[in-house]
Amino acid sequence: MAVYTEVTDEALIAFLGLYDIGTLIAFRGIAEGVENSNYALKTTGGDFILTLYEKRVETADLPYFLGLMEHLAARGLTCPLPVRARDGANLNGLAGKIAAITTFLPGVWPRRVLVEHCEPLGAALALLHQAGADFSVTRRNGLGPDAWGPLLQKCLPGADTVQHGLGDDLAVWLGGIVADWPKDLPVGQIHADLFPDNVFFLDGALSGLIDFYFACTDFYAYDVAVCLNAWCFERDFSFNVTKSRALLRGYESVRPLSEAERAALPVLAQGSAMRFLLTRLYDWLNTPEGALVTPKDPLDYYRRLRFHLAAEDASAYGL
Amino acid sequence: MAVYTEVTDEALIAFLGLYDIGTLIAFRGIAEGVENSNYALKTTGGDFILTLYEKRVETADLPYFLGLMEHLAARGLTCPLPVRARDGANLNGLAGKIAAITTFLPGVWPRRVLVEHCEPLGAALALLHQAGADFSVTRRNGLGPDAWGPLLQKCLPGADTVQHGLGDDLAVWLGGIVADWPKDLPVGQIHADLFPDNVFFLDGALSGLIDFYFACTDFYAYDVAVCLNAWCFERDFSFNVTKSRALLRGYESVRPLSEAERAALPVLAQGSAMRFLLTRLYDWLNTPEGALVTPKDPLDYYRRLRFHLAAEDASAYGL
Repeated sequence: MAVYTEVTDEALIAFLGLYDIGTLIAFRGIAEGVENSNYALKTTGGDFILTLYEKRVETADLPYFLGLMEHLAARGLTCPLPVRARDGANLNGLAGKIAAITTFLPGVWPRRVLVEHCEPLGAALALLHQAGADFSVTRRNGLGPDAWGPLLQKCLPGADTVQHGLGDDLAVWLGGIVADWPKDLPVGQIHADLFPDNVFFLDGALSGLIDFYFACTDFYAYDVAVCLNAWCFERDFSFNVTKSRALLRGYESVRPLSEAERAALPVLAQGSAMRFLLTRLYDWLNTPEGALVTPKDPLDYYRRLRFHLAAEDASAYGL
Repeated sequence: MAVYTEVTDEALIAFLGLYDIGTLIAFRGIAEGVENSNYALKTTGGDFILTLYEKRVETADLPYFLGLMEHLAARGLTCPLPVRARDGANLNGLAGKIAAITTFLPGVWPRRVLVEHCEPLGAALALLHQAGADFSVTRRNGLGPDAWGPLLQKCLPGADTVQHGLGDDLAVWLGGIVADWPKDLPVGQIHADLFPDNVFFLDGALSGLIDFYFACTDFYAYDVAVCLNAWCFERDFSFNVTKSRALLRGYESVRPLSEAERAALPVLAQGSAMRFLLTRLYDWLNTPEGALVTPKDPLDYYRRLRFHLAAEDASAYGL
């Protein structure tokens, strides 16, 4: 539900004048994505997405995100390609915000994840990791283990209003996860938020990945763990090991996991569940009443986290 | 911010199979419109809009709305054309709702209304009235004068929480408007909700009208009065008579108003302002906290209504 900034026609036409993509045909707000304002833009040059970056995205990070997309697209990953203005800039001002135009990707994200989605998803994730390996800019994971303690501190005063004892549970579990966190796994550019609504399929095949605005430089296997959380639980929070096997088979068909990466999967999955639990909990406790965006239930990730805490090794994920 | 119903890919593909518009390429929720769920649909056959009708639209009215759009489009008005399935149906079930596919209209709605928009808007409204004249189905205006009294009764308990004395003001003014309401003006098919976000422009020319889901059979001049409210007030609620002159000039270039219609403009504009004031007030008082849609301020129309109450005759609108 994401159109936070209104763009006047005059401002839009002036903005399009900076680019070589023809003249305006249509411009409609898109009801997807929660961080930025996204518009479907149609010009005589084709279909595009126009994104206005809202305050939750750090301006200083935008060149990393857009540079990574350009880099990945140049290496054959299907992702939005930033369109450069005539002067070469891929970021320009619009309606008081920084904005970018990217290419339009065909495809539809799966509202209901099927086993058939998981193998191509895993393969695309590994291709992303391979394609990003020679992208030399780095970005710290702002929502990695260092961030979880401070985030939990901010949530503690309200945590028990969500579930009795939640604050104590999270404090204990977080201590264990941080103590067990791996130190020397292979590192590179990761997506860090590859949920089903960021993955398009067309005619049964994966057609592209979008939304690189949490991308950062971190353990590849952490990205795999994010996907285990995002793709392999059913609506009743049961873990579907057929889906995780398919996901991991797809991943390893492109980039085999090392023994150390496999061994670390349970704690990485715990950490990933903790990350989404904490950011959802923070939003849950801090979203003003009447806000346009409905916060997601943090307890969805409490249940996932408990599954991963019980996982003794990678066999829990079908390996 | 309007996507209330999620559609699975399987259901969507089965639904598209009923039509002869090619295969699915993309499907994105549109963040515009508040009554229904709207999706931008791209197929190998082109661009379309898919609408799922939500509970505020009466199912029994859908054949009227879609029939009117077909009728108007066949007579040259640029509006969405319902696409018929292979079996001829223009309405089909999808995700537990009734849904329709319509053609995609190029254009962008004006975020800021300029004088230049008003003459073509007036002309398009008159063309709509002419084109609908031989559409034989009728639909009562469910938000006409008969509806305002009951709506005010529902709002009275909370009205004074919005503004001290609001309930009394509205009761007095409503009595006057209903007493003065004209009885025998020319009647036909009207849009009844032709706000700027329902009118597209492209390269400086009007390119189409959308959203016929308040259309009904009522006074043509009432539709003009709705547009005076929707297009001719500035953000500070001052009335811009240059805009209203342009709107009326455009209208009369196609369909001249009768003396009786001109004389009735002040009370029709009062009634139209009352209609939007009451529905906004009702939504304001009845929108649950945390709802996806932010209710619009009813007092915007209180200020418009006061302008029209002070209008002695059509000269207030530049005639």
